[in-house]
Amino acid sequence: MSQQGVTPQSEDFSRWYTDVVQKADLADYSPVRGCMIIKPYGYELWEAVKGGLDRRFKATGHQNAYFPLFIPESFLKKEAEHVEGFSPELAVVTIGGGKELEEPLIVRPTSETIIGWAFQKWIQSHRDLPLLINQWANVVRWELRTRLFLRTMEFLWQEGHTAHATHDDAQAETMRMLGVYADFATNDAAIPVIQGRKSDQERFAGALRSYTIEAMMRDRKALQSGTSHNLGQNFAKAFDIQYTDENNELQYCWTTSWGLSTRMVGAIVMTHGDDMGLRLPPRLAPIQVVIVPIARKDDERGPVLEAVGRVEAALREAGIRVHVDDRDNLSPGFKFNDWEMRGVPLRVEIGPKDVQKNSVALARRDIPGKAGKEFVPQDGLAAVVGARLDTIQANMLQQATEFRDSHLREVTGSYDEFIDVLQDGWALTWFCGGAACEDKVKEDAAAVSRCFPLDQPHPGETGKCMICGGEATEMAYFAKAY
Amino acid sequence: MSQQGVTPQSEDFSRWYTDVVQKADLADYSPVRGCMIIKPYGYELWEAVKGGLDRRFKATGHQNAYFPLFIPESFLKKEAEHVEGFSPELAVVTIGGGKELEEPLIVRPTSETIIGWAFQKWIQSHRDLPLLINQWANVVRWELRTRLFLRTMEFLWQEGHTAHATHDDAQAETMRMLGVYADFATNDAAIPVIQGRKSDQERFAGALRSYTIEAMMRDRKALQSGTSHNLGQNFAKAFDIQYTDENNELQYCWTTSWGLSTRMVGAIVMTHGDDMGLRLPPRLAPIQVVIVPIARKDDERGPVLEAVGRVEAALREAGIRVHVDDRDNLSPGFKFNDWEMRGVPLRVEIGPKDVQKNSVALARRDIPGKAGKEFVPQDGLAAVVGARLDTIQANMLQQATEFRDSHLREVTGSYDEFIDVLQDGWALTWFCGGAACEDKVKEDAAAVSRCFPLDQPHPGETGKCMICGGEATEMAYFAKAY
Repeated sequence: MSQQGVTPQSEDFSRWYTDVVQKADLADYSPVRGCMIIKPYGYELWEAVKGGLDRRFKATGHQNAYFPLFIPESFLKKEAEHVEGFSPELAVVTIGGGKELEEPLIVRPTSETIIGWAFQKWIQSHRDLPLLINQWANVVRWELRTRLFLRTMEFLWQEGHTAHATHDDAQAETMRMLGVYADFATNDAAIPVIQGRKSDQERFAGALRSYTIEAMMRDRKALQSGTSHNLGQNFAKAFDIQYTDENNELQYCWTTSWGLSTRMVGAIVMTHGDDMGLRLPPRLAPIQVVIVPIARKDDERGPVLEAVGRVEAALREAGIRVHVDDRDNLSPGFKFNDWEMRGVPLRVEIGPKDVQKNSVALARRDIPGKAGKEFVPQDGLAAVVGARLDTIQANMLQQATEFRDSHLREVTGSYDEFIDVLQDGWALTWFCGGAACEDKVKEDAAAVSRCFPLDQPHPGETGKCMICGGEATEMAYFAKAY
Repeated sequence: MSQQGVTPQSEDFSRWYTDVVQKADLADYSPVRGCMIIKPYGYELWEAVKGGLDRRFKATGHQNAYFPLFIPESFLKKEAEHVEGFSPELAVVTIGGGKELEEPLIVRPTSETIIGWAFQKWIQSHRDLPLLINQWANVVRWELRTRLFLRTMEFLWQEGHTAHATHDDAQAETMRMLGVYADFATNDAAIPVIQGRKSDQERFAGALRSYTIEAMMRDRKALQSGTSHNLGQNFAKAFDIQYTDENNELQYCWTTSWGLSTRMVGAIVMTHGDDMGLRLPPRLAPIQVVIVPIARKDDERGPVLEAVGRVEAALREAGIRVHVDDRDNLSPGFKFNDWEMRGVPLRVEIGPKDVQKNSVALARRDIPGKAGKEFVPQDGLAAVVGARLDTIQANMLQQATEFRDSHLREVTGSYDEFIDVLQDGWALTWFCGGAACEDKVKEDAAAVSRCFPLDQPHPGETGKCMICGGEATEMAYFAKAY
């Protein structure tokens, strides 16, 4: 059964996505091409994502700061690969205060350059290292084909920027933050992710090595959900980020950057959602529990609302994010659908019979119909609800993991088999990493390499590249992707 | 005594301000004219401001959302006063993705227009009202003369935008949020503020009535620290924000907007700072307590650091934001100066004698020298520290209030006396509200009207305008201002 006005996933996943994002009030189109409006419910979800990440960043010693929105055009040109990668996507301010500007200003597409300039000023000695900075900001990349949350011209994100004394320190930071993203995705967003290294073709413009967390959406496409880059000394050399070491000699720093954006909201929608709408993991859900009072007759109303108030207070006291839907112009059935659409993990129903029996009905969003419903006593309800939320969180991760694992396959047979697997899921295969091979897969299957997973199935072994037959030292995932 | 490298306030207040903001690591200039870099310590202070406000916004029923950075030029032109007010300050994107844009995009100077467009879509019925939205965002206003935090081309702020069914509802909201700002300033930032209405000349471009909280800086200049506007139906009519009332008739909404920015950080610096540096109110201080271990000999180190660790854990356990300065290449004296510069409210010193006596030395930032120092037992220290922080918070508000009150005067005598008072403080006087009068004061005393205070000293009475002698129904504050 599908919610009214929502295209079923099986019919058109892309329309399903847009329908749900709009009907669940997450976001809407704006009058500015490519820019979206994040509505309160969607923004609250983003705030939960921010909170989960910010806590982890601070626990790993990072500090927030804020750098200018505008970047002088000349800055971008200092790192050759970087400017080449970003040039086609820039929004440029040419008029300020009514006058033509002498040097145009770029609206930041990312901030390596301006932060590199600051690091050069801030870092003198090895005592200043590591420098661990994060910025929460909006960035702009001129995109022609945009989709709510997944690819918008302006988006919100965090970008971490760090400087280190050695390559190994920078590499360790790059991997630490990839791990932070994976931990957040798995434990907060209930999204199982594969951590891996991008191919050279998919590297960040100006990086030595780029790493990614890749998640499988319900249409089996891959979504790059966060990236972490070892920038080597590329930006340090372009911006003269130097320090004096313990022997008083001048050395270039090694820098990293890593980012995760509002795209994560899209990942949550497409990993967990069904034809009834959103399904939100309890740890991130703006509303964890919705209470729907059920009183058909006027004389039922008083006792029901009294019980609702008591239950609400008990749940709130236990730190549970609870909302009472006391709208008097809507039927319970309408409300059930409405909160299912919004993905609230747990529904509490309280009617006249529940008042009599001192019980409530609980309905889980992750298990549809009667199987997900139970009647429990009002006494001690907060503990039961807390336990159910934990169960739902774990179950959603398990469901998503099972779905993913049933659609990834190691392929070592023929190229035809490889292409065939890509029609319906992800293929893990030997890959030499070459650009020509990558292009051929793109042409034959509209799929791309996602990553060389950190967790290689045959460590120490080598194989023949599935595409060209050349030597391959690692296996890579290929998939159709967003 | 003044901190090394800091210009004394008495010598040059403006240079004192810039010195302190930079030496306390709050912010720095950027390579983009008029834009600043907010450094980690300054950003943490801004996060505390955000936290204090956001909590209050949510407690009064507001929800956060996010709207596009770019606004079509045509939108701004829909409200005549609005476009006239903001036109000279706009940054304009004319190139996107390598191509000249058909319609230039304005980098938002404020978001009434784009949010008005959204409200028109979101509001249908009286049931949708009031609509209470807030946005945390960056905005850009092309300023020629900029100063860190006080006036920058790009700044961070929140802008509240609400829609209501009636004028009275909108007016009540306007005043409620002015009250929220005043409550935050007084109780969190320890800044006493005067709430009042702006003169027509100082009104927000497009508003019916603008209200302000005005604070007195240590140089006796006024700083507008937050504003709240009743926008009447001006934007509702420009953007067709309409609802059907209970009789099913179409009505225009009444809207409000209100904003507070990173300027508040400047207000905190200039209200509380002294020649030693910042003084931060404990409720907002990123670090409330700094512990400085004092061990001159090697064999003292172990016992001292053990005591430091114990005290740190006890304070942290009590929810106090504590930092241990264990840098081993710096002297205690250097550290004392450093943390005084950064305005940490309370310093704990622990040396070998303190270890023996099971005590610590406490030094208050708000009371210099020996008068602010005491020795207290380590046992039960967290409770004592908590109490001292409360005392410091209250004392800073009292100091600021006394300073302000000693520099404001009601003037009903001669115009010369009025102008004279303005050289050294604020003057409260009868004012007709006219533009010509305002201009004359600007010319004669380089001062402007700050507000008609809500709390009028002679309610119900009228008087003669101090400037033109015409009838005046209210008294207004005049002052030199930022």
